[in-house]
Amino acid sequence: MNENQCDLCELLPKLDPIFETEHWKILLNQDQGYLGRCFVTLKVHKSSLSEINDAEWLDFSTAVKKLEKALKQAFGADLFNWSCLMNNAYQEESATPHVHWHVRPRYSNSVAFTGLEFSDPEFGRHYNRDQRLKVEKDILSAIKKEIQDNLG
Amino acid sequence: MNENQCDLCELLPKLDPIFETEHWKILLNQDQGYLGRCFVTLKVHKSSLSEINDAEWLDFSTAVKKLEKALKQAFGADLFNWSCLMNNAYQEESATPHVHWHVRPRYSNSVAFTGLEFSDPEFGRHYNRDQRLKVEKDILSAIKKEIQDNLG
Repeated sequence: MNENQCDLCELLPKLDPIFETEHWKILLNQDQGYLGRCFVTLKVHKSSLSEINDAEWLDFSTAVKKLEKALKQAFGADLFNWSCLMNNAYQEESATPHVHWHVRPRYSNSVAFTGLEFSDPEFGRHYNRDQRLKVEKDILSAIKKEIQDNLG
Repeated sequence: MNENQCDLCELLPKLDPIFETEHWKILLNQDQGYLGRCFVTLKVHKSSLSEINDAEWLDFSTAVKKLEKALKQAFGADLFNWSCLMNNAYQEESATPHVHWHVRPRYSNSVAFTGLEFSDPEFGRHYNRDQRLKVEKDILSAIKKEIQDNLG
């Protein structure tokens, strides 16, 4: 496992985040099936949660608070599903997992935003991996800006 | 949201953990579809990751390290899927989510243990919620003991 072979290490510096903390970069997911869905990605290459050090955990806590608050304020999210899986990395012959979190805000009510209706028909149950929504770039930008405007 | 109405708060003191840390209790899941599947549950009632304080996060880090190491040593787990979802709490009229993590160890190879064969045919992909395995109490005890024997 080597950061030199890690796609995420190469990609990460090129991506413009919603916001970042000292150790984590918060990026909007292109899939907005769950409005405000994003990634929280460790800036350095570490391959499991066991490798996260104290400073990175405390900084993660800061990121969690800031992001959850902004998503509540921006869109009225009721709950957040957090997961750190890293399965896909193991599809390669030589796996180079890089710690990142998937964040899916969950909604008890539908949300109208940018002329679109975002709904969460399975609120109260496990996220549906087939609930995907590819939106135009200007919609992605508007979602990102709305979250940024609520970072406080 | 009130701990007085929280089922987990009532149940937790009665459950015998694999191990515990100052703030977290690590419990074997009765479903062993993923060998070593367990819960990591906050001892006090808090309803979101935003409420977790610094001491609880640092103690969580200790629990993660200890658990991942033991599951690797015990069964050869290659990867761990961590998720904090709390969806089911929202099926009640008055939701009382209580922070807990689902841990699914993932395996590139099948594992023979207690005469059973545990496999992970979708290793490298998202966990399969239908991959469930209800095992006998003595098997649960043996899995728990094997993890405990590897806590080091």
